[in-house]
Amino acid sequence: MTARRMDGTALARRVRAEVAEQTARLTARTGAVPGLATVLVGDDPASAVYVRNKRRLCVEAGMRDLHRHLPADTTQAEAAALLDELAADPTVSGILLQLPLPAQLDAQPLLDRIPSGKDVDGLTAANAGLLAQGRPGLRPCTPAGVVRLLDTYDVPLSGAEVVVVGRSVLVGRPMAQLLLARDATVTLCHSRTRDVVEVCRRADVLVVAAGVPGIVGPEAVRPGAAVVDVGIHRTEDGLRGDVDPAVAEVAGLLTPVPGGVGPMTIAMLLANTVEAAERATAPVGAAR
Amino acid sequence: MTARRMDGTALARRVRAEVAEQTARLTARTGAVPGLATVLVGDDPASAVYVRNKRRLCVEAGMRDLHRHLPADTTQAEAAALLDELAADPTVSGILLQLPLPAQLDAQPLLDRIPSGKDVDGLTAANAGLLAQGRPGLRPCTPAGVVRLLDTYDVPLSGAEVVVVGRSVLVGRPMAQLLLARDATVTLCHSRTRDVVEVCRRADVLVVAAGVPGIVGPEAVRPGAAVVDVGIHRTEDGLRGDVDPAVAEVAGLLTPVPGGVGPMTIAMLLANTVEAAERATAPVGAAR
Repeated sequence: MTARRMDGTALARRVRAEVAEQTARLTARTGAVPGLATVLVGDDPASAVYVRNKRRLCVEAGMRDLHRHLPADTTQAEAAALLDELAADPTVSGILLQLPLPAQLDAQPLLDRIPSGKDVDGLTAANAGLLAQGRPGLRPCTPAGVVRLLDTYDVPLSGAEVVVVGRSVLVGRPMAQLLLARDATVTLCHSRTRDVVEVCRRADVLVVAAGVPGIVGPEAVRPGAAVVDVGIHRTEDGLRGDVDPAVAEVAGLLTPVPGGVGPMTIAMLLANTVEAAERATAPVGAAR
Repeated sequence: MTARRMDGTALARRVRAEVAEQTARLTARTGAVPGLATVLVGDDPASAVYVRNKRRLCVEAGMRDLHRHLPADTTQAEAAALLDELAADPTVSGILLQLPLPAQLDAQPLLDRIPSGKDVDGLTAANAGLLAQGRPGLRPCTPAGVVRLLDTYDVPLSGAEVVVVGRSVLVGRPMAQLLLARDATVTLCHSRTRDVVEVCRRADVLVVAAGVPGIVGPEAVRPGAAVVDVGIHRTEDGLRGDVDPAVAEVAGLLTPVPGGVGPMTIAMLLANTVEAAERATAPVGAAR
């Protein structure tokens, strides 16, 4: 068996086209142009690349690029002041604080200054709480992108046994909650799990976000399962995920690395930004 | 086999005694007496009983009873105004809005007015978010009481297979997160789960909070497992839980109903109240 590929590059393109249409409709209706404020502190080269891509695709979707760059020696107070300024600015629909930050900065109190309605990365405690309680709110981009991929490939989630490997605040934990919201029976595994292979083999849908190259091999996959690989690692053999390539012989569906989950993350960021802009322009008290 | 009983009545008494000592020490050190503001709206007889018990045990632990009673025809604005008053009152360490509310009131926006530091029920989105992200905060009382029971009976949690049945915002969801924080491999089951019996049988630790009398029978329990019954139902045969009494023949440890989880809920409420009071009197910026 060779797994069917879940093509994140193609789907991300489609999502971005939808966002562009939604943006155009919003602007036509209200005159407001959604604006995304990416905030980059310092000169980490990988972060610079990520931010550049986000800005480019944001402009391509018809939104305003409100990027801000702070020097590497920015103080906590200076970073906080910038976030407060962006929070108060009505032209800013969404704020994205690019992580990681330079060592002198404490990320969480800075993230928590972002108003929940502008938190397009879905990483504030406020939005995590809304998700945990099953209430509407902006969702973290990577797990939201995974759900979109699974839906596009008609993977049934209601009642399905889903296993998530990895319990990060960015991916694993919100992933489990988003799949629960879709009525899956969700198991969250991590480094302390006694027998990861046994647990993974139960899964109809397996999402791997462990941050360890090739940690899930074919012996851990039920034949025909849908497998989503959130990892991306630069290795001597090129880019590799958390899933061993041999899994393709066992799984029914599999996301490639690269070209699977990665492109979906930025697409969902743009979707969150136009959604944030729509909520901000909706009449107060409108049912949403 | 007959399961050993996990005695919540005895443990709750011990927790309350600890809270009383902690309260006395705090008062001796700072002069401040922790105060619990229970808020009862209307005259639901069951709620009246619950609130009376909370108030009585609060006084017994040396804390101030700052109970407030609003009439059944209270408006949303009046209830909000009372909560804002309590939020601003420095003698109030904790606020508990007794649910359910009369039909004309919308509970969630009222709960969300409670500052996270006074949210001794742990039900605001803010505290749910802190829990979801693995950060310090006040935890919901019933699941916190379950963890305390399991610890007291030396049930290993790290690496254990734990299954939680029921996904309520009050119990099931925060329960799963608290057990994850203790490094368990957690599966959350619910009404859409395909084969609840099969999933439950994997559990070293099974927590049942489904709200359906006797929904978990002996066929769903792995021999020797620790089983926690969060349900309580008035039936023709007296008080019954979500767990069939025949489970006692299979489980290794079992909470009785009544006298298991129930008494722990109020004990953890009191523990949260003194904790909230300690945080409120801690010097600003103190590490906690």
